[in-house]
Amino acid sequence: MALKAVVFDAYGTLFDVQSVAAVTDAAFPGHGDYITQVWRLKQLEYTWLRSLMGQYADFWTVTREALAYTLATLGLVADEALFDRIAAAYDALEAYPDAEPALAALGAFRLAIFSNGSPAMLAALVGRSPLGRFLEASLSVDAKRVYKPDPRAYALVEEALGVAPAEALFVSSNGFDVSGAKQVGFAVARIERVPAPDLSRALVAAPAIGPSLMFKALRTQAERCGAAADWTIASLTDLPALAAQLAGR
Amino acid sequence: MALKAVVFDAYGTLFDVQSVAAVTDAAFPGHGDYITQVWRLKQLEYTWLRSLMGQYADFWTVTREALAYTLATLGLVADEALFDRIAAAYDALEAYPDAEPALAALGAFRLAIFSNGSPAMLAALVGRSPLGRFLEASLSVDAKRVYKPDPRAYALVEEALGVAPAEALFVSSNGFDVSGAKQVGFAVARIERVPAPDLSRALVAAPAIGPSLMFKALRTQAERCGAAADWTIASLTDLPALAAQLAGR
Repeated sequence: MALKAVVFDAYGTLFDVQSVAAVTDAAFPGHGDYITQVWRLKQLEYTWLRSLMGQYADFWTVTREALAYTLATLGLVADEALFDRIAAAYDALEAYPDAEPALAALGAFRLAIFSNGSPAMLAALVGRSPLGRFLEASLSVDAKRVYKPDPRAYALVEEALGVAPAEALFVSSNGFDVSGAKQVGFAVARIERVPAPDLSRALVAAPAIGPSLMFKALRTQAERCGAAADWTIASLTDLPALAAQLAGR
Repeated sequence: MALKAVVFDAYGTLFDVQSVAAVTDAAFPGHGDYITQVWRLKQLEYTWLRSLMGQYADFWTVTREALAYTLATLGLVADEALFDRIAAAYDALEAYPDAEPALAALGAFRLAIFSNGSPAMLAALVGRSPLGRFLEASLSVDAKRVYKPDPRAYALVEEALGVAPAEALFVSSNGFDVSGAKQVGFAVARIERVPAPDLSRALVAAPAIGPSLMFKALRTQAERCGAAADWTIASLTDLPALAAQLAGR
């Protein structure tokens, strides 16, 4: 393929959504893991439900709605300052350790983010991280007012970069995003942050399956309702070699 | 309001999705609760994702995809006969005990189901239950090839029954369905199968939050991303009085 660009999902692929755990647990000690997992699960559900209902609201709104839902299930009340402080954790996610070296090694290609995140959230995330200097653009579905995996959202990549899906490698750890990107013609690499054998071993061996394992079970595996990735790799570390191979270099 | 019809969601509202637990646990002893919960969680995720991708497949297909996903997370393999036997549990869900008396007491109104279920699944469910004789129709989103909460799905109710949303009371225990029905103009009664205080007490008191509690936390509460129900009632038992009141009787 004439590989011109590598386009990355942000949440869960370049940035670790689990890194809000310190903030959630400090806010409500003992409930951090539950809040972290349910918050993320509902956050994505709300992007899907709002898209289906034609009721787009940006990812910052959705992130706060999902947090409000999560705290309410526990019967917990956060005053406005505390609520804002927890929500802000999504603007300060840590980049995965494999992200910076991978982006640095992909210098031969145009690099961009394409994310559900609002423009302000992506600016905050990228601005705090060392990844920004490698990225040509951080594209937000906000321009399309619909979330992944709606095909209308992915159309933004070609419009903004001038690169056709067939000339771009899309990289995501999110199963629904893999299927959505594949459907519209991207070459797709799935980052397998939780290998299937590790997950099944953990699920079968666990004396109790808690929120963290439930999250892994629900959202880290390849989906069965859409197209599969072209390549599955263990981490971003394997990406430069794959991209070079695709580009015939 | 000029209440003419009462329209019911099926899965979780009239029929108990938890009633597959005996089958899942018999198939894979010790894993029944996990399979039951993840299966149902993914089943609904897949209706949303397929709708967003414009890749409709009927609820029987989606139900089997979700089961395949669930078993794969555990590293379990079911041969075709066992897989079919587990999947068939969705055609044999038990009606909630409050369903038959409620429908019997609503004889003054036109009564129908409007469900994600495929026509064949709904025929099997209703055919096995004592509810069929009270129901004028079992309407499936299949006619629209898109799932709840897409507004195009709900349009079927008026088309099939000739009753405008404003003249119908829609009844559901599913938060996303409440929001979807409310958005298109139905009067909506939410059945609160898991009261919020009970859930928060259970979550806070539990030594470990397992699959069943995670399911309740994720899918039994009112959503924060859409319109709220007009009325929230504890069970279907309270429905005849509400309907009579709305009809001014």
